[in-house]
Amino acid sequence: MSRAMPSIEIEFQVEFYDVDSMQVVWHGHYLKYFEKVRCALLNALGYGYLEMRESGYAFPVIGVSVKYIHPLTFGEKVRARAWLEEYENCLIISYALYNAAGKMATRGSSTQMAYDLAGNESCLVCPDILLEKVQAFMDGRSGESA
Amino acid sequence: MSRAMPSIEIEFQVEFYDVDSMQVVWHGHYLKYFEKVRCALLNALGYGYLEMRESGYAFPVIGVSVKYIHPLTFGEKVRARAWLEEYENCLIISYALYNAAGKMATRGSSTQMAYDLAGNESCLVCPDILLEKVQAFMDGRSGESA
Amino acid sequence: MSRAMPSIEIEFQVEFYDVDSMQVVWHGHYLKYFEKVRCALLNALGYGYLEMRESGYAFPVIGVSVKYIHPLTFGEKVRARAWLEEYENCLIISYALYNAAGKMATRGSSTQMAYDLAGNESCLVCPDILLEKVQAFMDGRSGESA
Amino acid sequence: MSRAMPSIEIEFQVEFYDVDSMQVVWHGHYLKYFEKVRCALLNALGYGYLEMRESGYAFPVIGVSVKYIHPLTFGEKVRARAWLEEYENCLIISYALYNAAGKMATRGSSTQMAYDLAGNESCLVCPDILLEKVQAFMDGRSGESA
Repeated sequence: MSRAMPSIEIEFQVEFYDVDSMQVVWHGHYLKYFEKVRCALLNALGYGYLEMRESGYAFPVIGVSVKYIHPLTFGEKVRARAWLEEYENCLIISYALYNAAGKMATRGSSTQMAYDLAGNESCLVCPDILLEKVQAFMDGRSGESA
Repeated sequence: MSRAMPSIEIEFQVEFYDVDSMQVVWHGHYLKYFEKVRCALLNALGYGYLEMRESGYAFPVIGVSVKYIHPLTFGEKVRARAWLEEYENCLIISYALYNAAGKMATRGSSTQMAYDLAGNESCLVCPDILLEKVQAFMDGRSGESA
Repeated sequence: MSRAMPSIEIEFQVEFYDVDSMQVVWHGHYLKYFEKVRCALLNALGYGYLEMRESGYAFPVIGVSVKYIHPLTFGEKVRARAWLEEYENCLIISYALYNAAGKMATRGSSTQMAYDLAGNESCLVCPDILLEKVQAFMDGRSGESA
Repeated sequence: MSRAMPSIEIEFQVEFYDVDSMQVVWHGHYLKYFEKVRCALLNALGYGYLEMRESGYAFPVIGVSVKYIHPLTFGEKVRARAWLEEYENCLIISYALYNAAGKMATRGSSTQMAYDLAGNESCLVCPDILLEKVQAFMDGRSGESA
């Protein structure tokens, strides 16, 4: 029986300091928005940045891509979704941002690679703890209890 | 006779406020570095953001991708290269950043689409003025005199 | 009968990209936090940045000061308060940020001066519309209906 | 015989991503400019952030103030000066930024307090090494050889 991959949705508002002289969010700030919703997703899995570090791993970002479809403007309410694409070798998360009218504003993805903090080396496969956290989430068990 | 596509190289130093808690440049800040060297390239063509606007166009970024190869740290001297990949339909620029030891740190690309400010619409081909600026640069004529 | 000056309180979480290599929020990012809660206060008055512009004015920041008392760290829940100090000549707003334990982390203030967008000049007194909005708020009438 | 306090001057250009929707540098970004020139000053003293840490100290910022006099715009060449005000108890540095026309754009100051990294406590006086570095600089001996 197939189960949906972990996903999450958050809402936030576009701040003045993210808007450029063309009256739209500067394209580089979307990586902040991606990180905001990525952290929400990882926290929901019970495997946020702090838990990663406690488990002996970091997951540095090794690649990102962004497509800008519709600009976001100051004060707009944004709905941001993130969902897991892969978690075996690399941790790949996809993103979609929607404006208040429900129109897709931006989409993209990030690739992270596990890094063994004690051994000081990159890992070619994700550590078991990530797989367990994902499995627990998909089984409907809370990430916290994984 | 083939001529090399326009390219440029700048140097800068990694500032403290760009470094995250893992002691490396936060991945999102590389889009600032890309923009810094992109502006240098466009200025060398005599077609920087201000000239774009004066000519009736903006070139919003519609896509970016970044590969993170080797982290940059506080105080490091960075050498950043940007070069034109395409300028007919979209304006595509590629980037490569090197650390002080000459090791490639990051590479990526950005895609921009011309936007007609008076007509309020995206352009499927780049305006003639961009092509002329690029041609003048490749002919060894200064961008300023194009 | 005296009435309290307009104030507001919001909550947010410290994002990873705001934390520096000393594991605390980089001191410059607090001006983003101040702006976030300042916008909330002005919106509550029914006189946010967009309403300001519609009324023919901007309120550029002409001064800020910040005292850093206790550092904020990644993931911390922050409670931010902003309150009006003055609104006759300049618009002065004060700020206090508290960490999850209720300890004051940062306090500061900002001074803004009205700028007449049509006349292209700074104003030595705040426009009537600001005073009316503040009065309405203090009278318990919603900022929106002012 | 009196000697001038250590000072330095750097130049940089305003980047697109620092400019807000009012077409001027967003007020919060000036703390980045202050840090840029502060680092240049401390490096000239031979006591930059890395040397501070090697000597067992950090100098967290405990206060800043900024006065905004004249806005800076995209592409402008900025001249930034920093000079030491105090270095006995706190490290106080003042800043002045000038636009290309030589007009003062911004001024401000920052206060830093020494923090003993081994002892995990703030210091009520600056460590001797800072005083020696400052003395060496004022004696015309290079900070590096101090």
